[in-house]
Amino acid sequence: MDKKRTFEVILAPNLYSSKQTKEPYNVVVVDIFRATTSICGALDYGVKAIIPVKRIRHARLMKRLGYIVAAERGGHKVKFAHLGNSATAFFKPEFIGQEIVYSTTNGTKAVKKAHHARNIVIGSFINLSAVAEWLASKPENLVIFCAGWKNKVNLEDSLFAGALSQLLVNKYGFTTDDDSANLAIDQWNNAKDNILGYIEKSSHRNRLRNLVDDELLNFTFAIDKSRVVPILKRYKIVKA
Amino acid sequence: MDKKRTFEVILAPNLYSSKQTKEPYNVVVVDIFRATTSICGALDYGVKAIIPVKRIRHARLMKRLGYIVAAERGGHKVKFAHLGNSATAFFKPEFIGQEIVYSTTNGTKAVKKAHHARNIVIGSFINLSAVAEWLASKPENLVIFCAGWKNKVNLEDSLFAGALSQLLVNKYGFTTDDDSANLAIDQWNNAKDNILGYIEKSSHRNRLRNLVDDELLNFTFAIDKSRVVPILKRYKIVKA
Repeated sequence: MDKKRTFEVILAPNLYSSKQTKEPYNVVVVDIFRATTSICGALDYGVKAIIPVKRIRHARLMKRLGYIVAAERGGHKVKFAHLGNSATAFFKPEFIGQEIVYSTTNGTKAVKKAHHARNIVIGSFINLSAVAEWLASKPENLVIFCAGWKNKVNLEDSLFAGALSQLLVNKYGFTTDDDSANLAIDQWNNAKDNILGYIEKSSHRNRLRNLVDDELLNFTFAIDKSRVVPILKRYKIVKA
Repeated sequence: MDKKRTFEVILAPNLYSSKQTKEPYNVVVVDIFRATTSICGALDYGVKAIIPVKRIRHARLMKRLGYIVAAERGGHKVKFAHLGNSATAFFKPEFIGQEIVYSTTNGTKAVKKAHHARNIVIGSFINLSAVAEWLASKPENLVIFCAGWKNKVNLEDSLFAGALSQLLVNKYGFTTDDDSANLAIDQWNNAKDNILGYIEKSSHRNRLRNLVDDELLNFTFAIDKSRVVPILKRYKIVKA
């Protein structure tokens, strides 16, 4: 008999402790600007693995150990790092087949909090359908975990949560009784016909203006550009 | 010179610690099912004051001291209480001019967390425009604080936050760069033409089914039925 899988949406890390989904469940981590989009882009491009670390000093240590390091704070590349966190920064032939250390705050926090998950999957607009399909092939319930911005809800992560929720409900028979999921679905349905317009309407705000340029914006919302499904395996994010 | 007032929306209590609005600010507490709707209804009917208490044992103590007590847990009236928490339970002539002790979990938690506020106002659909007008008459910024449900986001509180946000922006020139506010506004715009339909679409779920009957549902969404503006003054909620 086909057991109905359920899911819920966590709109910011502080809400994760109130999750009601019973184990076992998978978690999709969402940090659209920028961690999860960059990770999906990097693995799609041919990077072998991303090693997420939270602290800058750990990133520095790993640089000494010979790793390539991506690190950014406040939208600027950290001085000692080889590259920043923008997806497009990973597209260099010399990174193909390499493992890259990636220092990120919001995203890593989410990954840590989600350690009870059976699988941790990295979601972004560029691999939306691939992630949905992969989740649908698994028996577990699901938590869509938005990394947010300084523990606040942010509209690009919730927008992705809405897009994924809608797909899981409409195409794969997942069910939800979670109000955050319904809120996110509402947002997605308002935005989907003109996503860039919807985002730009909001991007007069400092937060977005500092984070994204046009090239990155176009890459970030290139829905289903990739079939990659990055998952966490023993501290490294690799292709499933 | 007219200083632009800003506001933000807190979708659940655990997100309050991440608020970015600077003091001084006012807080609107929102707990549509049921506390804030009941309090607005009660004061509108003629109850003199509502004394919010969190713990059932404090409510019991105050009953011994001679107070009328409203208390409910899990949708059922607590045995020793005079009445439950439904708005309609307060509509009795003998309550007019009285002070009533009201035991509620979500709402009281929100009121406590909001103690830095210049004014704490009680918001519900039945006094939506009156609250907006009152806020517009004050110089402070604003936090719309949804009490949520067991620390999760709930759709009736966020729906009210969206309605109030839209009004403050459109009619009174408040501004916001808060994504939760924009999310709530999206939800409101999706729902406003058929609010009961929108809520009922979601009310097959256990949470709502246990909480509301048709009479209460109609009362709860009777927008602008009242001009009452309840505010907290020295531990009591009274008319502004």
